[in-house]
Parts: sequence; structure tokens; C-alpha cells
Amino acid sequence: MSLRERIQELGRQGLAASRSLALMDAGHKNRILRAMADGLLAREAEILAANAQDLAAAEAKGLSPAMLDRLRLDPKRLAAMAQGVREVADLPDPVGEELAAWERPNGLKIRKVRVPIGVIGIIYESRPNVTSDAAVLCFKSGNATILRGGSEAFHSNTAIAAALQEAGGAAGLPPHSIQLVPFTDRESVRHMAEMNEYLDLIIPRGGKGLIETVVRLARMPVIKHYDGICHVYVDAGADAAMAESILLNAKTTKPSACNAAETLLVHQDAAESFYARIIPVLTGAGVKLYGGPDLVEKYPGAVSPATEENYRTEYLDLGLSIKTVADLEAAVAHIQNYGSRHSEVIVTEYPEAAAAFLNAVDSAVVLWNASTRFNDGGEFGFGCEIGISTDKLHARGPMGLPELTSYKYQVTGTGQVRA
Amino acid sequence: MSLRERIQELGRQGLAASRSLALMDAGHKNRILRAMADGLLAREAEILAANAQDLAAAEAKGLSPAMLDRLRLDPKRLAAMAQGVREVADLPDPVGEELAAWERPNGLKIRKVRVPIGVIGIIYESRPNVTSDAAVLCFKSGNATILRGGSEAFHSNTAIAAALQEAGGAAGLPPHSIQLVPFTDRESVRHMAEMNEYLDLIIPRGGKGLIETVVRLARMPVIKHYDGICHVYVDAGADAAMAESILLNAKTTKPSACNAAETLLVHQDAAESFYARIIPVLTGAGVKLYGGPDLVEKYPGAVSPATEENYRTEYLDLGLSIKTVADLEAAVAHIQNYGSRHSEVIVTEYPEAAAAFLNAVDSAVVLWNASTRFNDGGEFGFGCEIGISTDKLHARGPMGLPELTSYKYQVTGTGQVRA
Repeated sequence: MSLRERIQELGRQGLAASRSLALMDAGHKNRILRAMADGLLAREAEILAANAQDLAAAEAKGLSPAMLDRLRLDPKRLAAMAQGVREVADLPDPVGEELAAWERPNGLKIRKVRVPIGVIGIIYESRPNVTSDAAVLCFKSGNATILRGGSEAFHSNTAIAAALQEAGGAAGLPPHSIQLVPFTDRESVRHMAEMNEYLDLIIPRGGKGLIETVVRLARMPVIKHYDGICHVYVDAGADAAMAESILLNAKTTKPSACNAAETLLVHQDAAESFYARIIPVLTGAGVKLYGGPDLVEKYPGAVSPATEENYRTEYLDLGLSIKTVADLEAAVAHIQNYGSRHSEVIVTEYPEAAAAFLNAVDSAVVLWNASTRFNDGGEFGFGCEIGISTDKLHARGPMGLPELTSYKYQVTGTGQVRA
Repeated sequence: MSLRERIQELGRQGLAASRSLALMDAGHKNRILRAMADGLLAREAEILAANAQDLAAAEAKGLSPAMLDRLRLDPKRLAAMAQGVREVADLPDPVGEELAAWERPNGLKIRKVRVPIGVIGIIYESRPNVTSDAAVLCFKSGNATILRGGSEAFHSNTAIAAALQEAGGAAGLPPHSIQLVPFTDRESVRHMAEMNEYLDLIIPRGGKGLIETVVRLARMPVIKHYDGICHVYVDAGADAAMAESILLNAKTTKPSACNAAETLLVHQDAAESFYARIIPVLTGAGVKLYGGPDLVEKYPGAVSPATEENYRTEYLDLGLSIKTVADLEAAVAHIQNYGSRHSEVIVTEYPEAAAAFLNAVDSAVVLWNASTRFNDGGEFGFGCEIGISTDKLHARGPMGLPELTSYKYQVTGTGQVRA
């Protein structure tokens, strides 16, 4: 069998499994999920041994400390993974929910009900916890998954998938509900992306290069999680202490996150006093600053000159672009031109300014007087997330279980025919 | 400027227009729509002259009568087009609708509100009414459109777009809200499909070849309207007269429609008597029948032998595949293997059988005792439709105005930062 045929076999098997999953009741799914959580803990030794094998190979290859940290599992991280599975079991089942119902003048009764999407492909990089997180979220929402993880985490992913499959299987998980692609070469991504007869959706999780490759190849819908070039706009009407607190939170608490701030925009009327306050604080927190000529002149040493490129950069570390803007409209125009439609904040005490900003800015999450870091499934109360969509179709912003479903219309008649 | 640059300029202009459209209130949009309807009628002579030019060229090229009919406009069809624009004006504006609102324990208030998608590309074939229908539906839902019609209808499309742009413009339509691509070569489709920096969505409307081309090239989401291989399943518990009426309606009232039936499945217990009733009726209605050996033997001459290929065929005319199935599960399995997830009917008096069918069959619209032909935006009460999606992501089944929108989250805080 060629590689293509072997991947297609996974697709066929996943499709068959998805038909059983679509009809499984919530109680049964939750029992299987709890068995999976137990299974992860029961196989701790095997999973950590497999992870040690991956880590040793990654160290030998000279991967960066940040990469090694993403790859690393320990008893605490494994326990968190199992706890995540239990939390998914506790969430309400989205499948079967009635989204709308109405009756037509001819007596036809129409119900719009949530159904699973079908078979979902997940293509991801080095974090082995994605194997468990993605598989259980998709399972709870009635979908079969085909997981294709990165080569660095291959042994870890294999051990985690085996634990889920075996513990789940003993509790009634249909065969092939959760399948790990046993190949990590690039061609396997291509074959997955081309088999739109079996995969209803692909979700790539990882760097921009991976996502662009999947988008280019995919013949089925892709939900993307591109970069976050998030803005904090400090309006003329801002409370300076609140603006400082929000900016520091947005920039420094997790700079590698997509919901971290990358650019500070300041209304010209607030600029002088706010810069005097914030620049020493940011510099003290280790943030590298890039600003316009006004700032470079006023704060030589502290602020480097910003190029066009700076305003399009997702630093993913402690870098911050700064720009003084004439007014709110100029802030919105900057966000439209340079932003990635992810998360943008206005800090102001003026409700009219806030309303104008929240309406005009076309981003997944727009905030008034709160940190960009709240663009997150957990913080929204979704319990968990499969990512933060930067798309505008199907799912936008934090994705929870409902975003892993579709719908169908069930129509009940008494013999009606169309005129 | 190269062709690619000229198409990209349309994209840039559409993006700028979409920002104005997103903030336009419903009253203003409706005034513009009514002006557009008037504009179509005021320019009747020009539009029909342009259409006559297209028709003459199409006749000279030897296009089929069906193709010529699709292309043809007359005063009645133009009036219907204008009336469609007025009906869109009368529909509620989806933009700004609050889809959900909740408060988090930390006091953050989250609102999920409908927003336009942005810039929508429509790629279509010979029907000139799509120019108006698609443009006004997208406009009402706050989106800019870039329309790329087929070469056969080029003069008609140009005249219709000019009428909409000029009459709309005089009433306040922002420039470039509705743009017609002035090129009809294949390369223009490629350039549109590749400019995901400007287009948020592409909707191809036309034959399977066009849709497949767009899917292969597109870097942005595509909402597809593939074929309908729709089934009528006559259960053991069917009322035979109702089954006959539904089948005839589904097969013969508009066989070229995607929601027409292509395959009849009959439970073995109902087969003998139902075939004896229906086969003469179908034959009398001019329907060509393809069935299994049982049928060919019993009705020689009336029923030709069906191959595997028959059961995968969308006839688009008066052809019908027939199969006797052992039970409801076998009917569902046949639909899963051969269907296109479009519209499927069960005819039965048994509520348990109906419930099993409506739950197990994974199609956009599943019906109990009603014709497949009800899978239609108008019949669902959506007022109008941009098509019937065969996708499972974002929109499934008949698409109305809400399906042309996205959403964003507006979050209001009092200075909250994330722990």
C-alpha cells in the first residue's frame, strides 16, 4: 500500500467511526471520557518513558530550550492533561441541541439541530498535550479525529493515543474514533489535506509556516489560528493607572501567546503624560520599545526607531511597537492596516469613544477597559478550547465544543409537496 | 498594470468599501436598495439591449436551448429581478443582532454580535440575475462584493452592475461596494482565488467543474453548492398514495434542480405493491427507470439495469435509480454510501422509523413525509437565498442573510487584567 492509500484507509475508517459517534448519547460519551482520563494516569510510566525518548532525540538535535519545554511531559503535566479530559466530560453535550424551530404556513415543521461535523483532521507541531486535548474535544462533540503530530513528539503522541484508544475502547469507544497518523513526513500532510472525501475539516495548530502549508494544500475547510498582532489604544479619556495595568498585563504576562499585545497606540492629547509614566515602567520590565521620531527623540536609548515592519510584527517576546495617533479614527485606521483582527483594546472613560471603537474595529474580540489576554476559551467560560480562530467563517475567536459542530434541518410533514 | 494587479486593485477597493458598509444603518441600506430596484427598471432598454448582444453571440456559438434560456432576460424577468431587490430591502437587517450576552465572575460583560463577513467574491456562470441577487444580498448583510460572471453574460452583467452602482451611488452607496470584474478569462478566477488578503469568502455558483476549480485554487474559505443526489425512501409503514405524490413531486416538477430526487429506495415489505402502483405512473410521466435485477425481471422494457454508477448519478433530468432495501438501516447505509448529503425523505406512518431516519441520515435537510423540493430558502421562509450549501462548516442547506454574516465579541470591563 502506498503512503497515500494508507492515509486514505485512516480516512475511510474515521468516516465509519464518525457514524457511530454521531448517535452516541452524552452519558456514554462521558463514561468513555472518564475511562480515558484514568487510562492516561494508569500509563504514566509508559508515556513519560516515550517522552524521555523524544526529549533525548530533541536535545541531540539541538532544539531550543523553549522547544524542549513545549515537548516535555512530567507527572504534573500529565495529571493536568487527565484533568482536562475530566473537565470535558463535565461540559454539556452540544449534539442534539435545538437551535431553532418553526412552522411554515403549509404546516411543515422545521427544526434546526446541532450535529457533529464528522471527521476532523488535526495537524500540529511539538506539544504532545494537543493529542489528548484535540481528541477528547472532538470526541465529546461527536467527531472522529485523525491526528498528525510533529516528528519531535512522535513517541509521546503514540503513547498518549494508545492510552486513550485502549482505555476508551474498553469503555465502548468505537474503533478508529481517534487515530494517530503513524507517519510524520511532509507527504502525509499533503495526503490528508487532499482527502476531502473523508475529512470534513482540518485544524492546523502551530506556526505560520505549518498553517500556510495546510491552507495551500487543503481541499476541505480549514479553521486557522494565525498570529495575533493585538493593539492597546490609550484614548484621550483613559485612566492612566488602568491603562498602565492593562498594558503591562497584555504585554508581559505571556508574551509568547497570540493574545499578547504587540502595539501601543496613544492619543496625542494623552501622549506626553502617559509616555512619561509608562516608558520607565516598560523598560524596567525588560520590554524593548520601538517608536516614532517623537519618542526616539524624547527617550533616546529607551526607544528605538520603528519601521513599517515593526508595526506588522508579532514579537512573541518582550518587544512593543508604539505610535502616537491624532485621534480615535487614526487608531482604528492603524489597526485596520496593521492588525490581524485578533484582539484590540480601548482604554477610556468616555462611553462614546468606547462604542465607536467596539463597532468600528473588525477583530474577533474587541475590549473596553480590559486586557487582550482575555481572548481565551477558559476566560470566556467555554471550559476549554481547541484554539482561537482568526477566521471569520464558521468560528471566530475562542473555539469551544459548539464550534466543533454543524447543524441539520429536520422537517416533518403530512405529505406536503411543492407547488 | 498586470491582470493580477488590476484584480488586486478591485480587492483593495472592496476592502475599503466594506468598512463603510459594516457601519451603515438598516434604514440607509434599505433606501439604497429601493433606489437600485428603481434603477434596474429605469434602465430596462439598456439592459435588454446588452442581453440581446449576449444572446446573439451565444446563438452564433451554438449554445444549447437550455443555456440560451438561462441567459435570456425579458421585461418580466427584469421586473422579477427588481422585485427581488425590494424583497431584500424588506427583510430584517442581520447586522448588529445580539447572538448571546453573559457576564463572567470577574465582572467582564461579553456580547456576541453579528457583523458582516467583509468582502465576498462571487464566481458564476451564465445566469445574469445572479449579478443582482448576489450583490444585493451581500450588500444588505453589510458586505462588499466582487462579481465575476461568465463570458456569455458579460454585456448583460455589465449593464446590470452599472444600473445598481449608479442608482445605488446616487442614494449613498459607497464607491466600490459592488464591483464587476471586467475580465472573463480563467486567469481572473485564479487571481481572485489567491487574494486572501482582500477576499474573506468566495461563493462559486455554477457547474461542478467551476466549483472544483475554485476549491482547488482558493486560499480563503469557499462555500460550495455541489450536486444533490437526493433520496426518497418508502418505508414498510408508508402510505402508498402519499409516497406516490411525494416521489412524483420530488422527481418531476423541476428535474434540473439540485433538490430533485435521483433515487427511490423501497423497503422489501412494501416493494411488490408499491412498484406495481408507481412504475406505470413514472413511465407515464416520462421518467427513465434504472433498477436492480428484481425490477428488470418483473418490468422488462420499463426498467433498465442499474449499475453502481447510476446510484451515484445526478440525472438533472427525468432519470430515476431504484433499489429495494432489506430495512431502514440498509436504506440509511445506501444514502451514506451514495448520497451527497443534500436532501433525503422518509415516507412512513411509523414515528419510530421516522425518528431513526431523521437522526441517522447526515444530510443538510432530512424530511419525514414531505418532498425533497422543500430544501429551498424561499420554502424555509428565508425570503431569498444565495444558494444551498452542501458544506457542513459555517452554512449548511439554504443560505439566507444571516449566513452571509460573521460575529465578533465585544467585551466591556472596568480595568480587569488576567491573573
